[in-house]
Amino acid sequence: MTILDADAGYVVVINTFSVDPDKAEDLLKVLSETTEQTIGKLPGFVSANFHVAKDRKYVTNYAQWSSEAALDAMMSDPASQEQLKKVGAIANRADPILYELRKTYGPGE
Amino acid sequence: MTILDADAGYVVVINTFSVDPDKAEDLLKVLSETTEQTIGKLPGFVSANFHVAKDRKYVTNYAQWSSEAALDAMMSDPASQEQLKKVGAIANRADPILYELRKTYGPGE
Repeated sequence: MTILDADAGYVVVINTFSVDPDKAEDLLKVLSETTEQTIGKLPGFVSANFHVAKDRKYVTNYAQWSSEAALDAMMSDPASQEQLKKVGAIANRADPILYELRKTYGPGE
Repeated sequence: MTILDADAGYVVVINTFSVDPDKAEDLLKVLSETTEQTIGKLPGFVSANFHVAKDRKYVTNYAQWSSEAALDAMMSDPASQEQLKKVGAIANRADPILYELRKTYGPGE
């Protein structure tokens, strides 16, 4: 369970992986393993949230990090890079975009 | 504050709006007003969460709906369509993708 709160000040990375629909479940599995074994243990990791598109053409990670420095450290961590090669072997393309969460609305707001 | 929980069974729509960087704040404002005045009051609305990219080229809504039927009803609601025209006048492009949230990881998971 993950909380989205504009006051938390996290860096948000929404990474949209394009994938052949018949490989979407494989990609989800490899991304989950990568998080469990390596990336989820790194300093500054807050959350990873994996989504599969209804048409199965995309698997998207909504990730929260404590800072851009922590995110950069993950990207240059050798064990993470090794794991991300496995992701790259299944996905056709990755489109990460860095964001700041600015405003949330729930029911009745 | 929004909760991401794979067991909630919501439909997730991640809508990436491309925008001229100097219009990102305007777009955020219009999207917020649209949610406050119209879309956020519709049946089946769960949450809208507005993000501005670090490079200001994208404003992205991570939205939760109770069902695809509720989402379809919003898209064909005349008042929502009127509001969304204002969004379309500022954004260069909208790329909505429908998802199912499958797995979340927090620290130590």
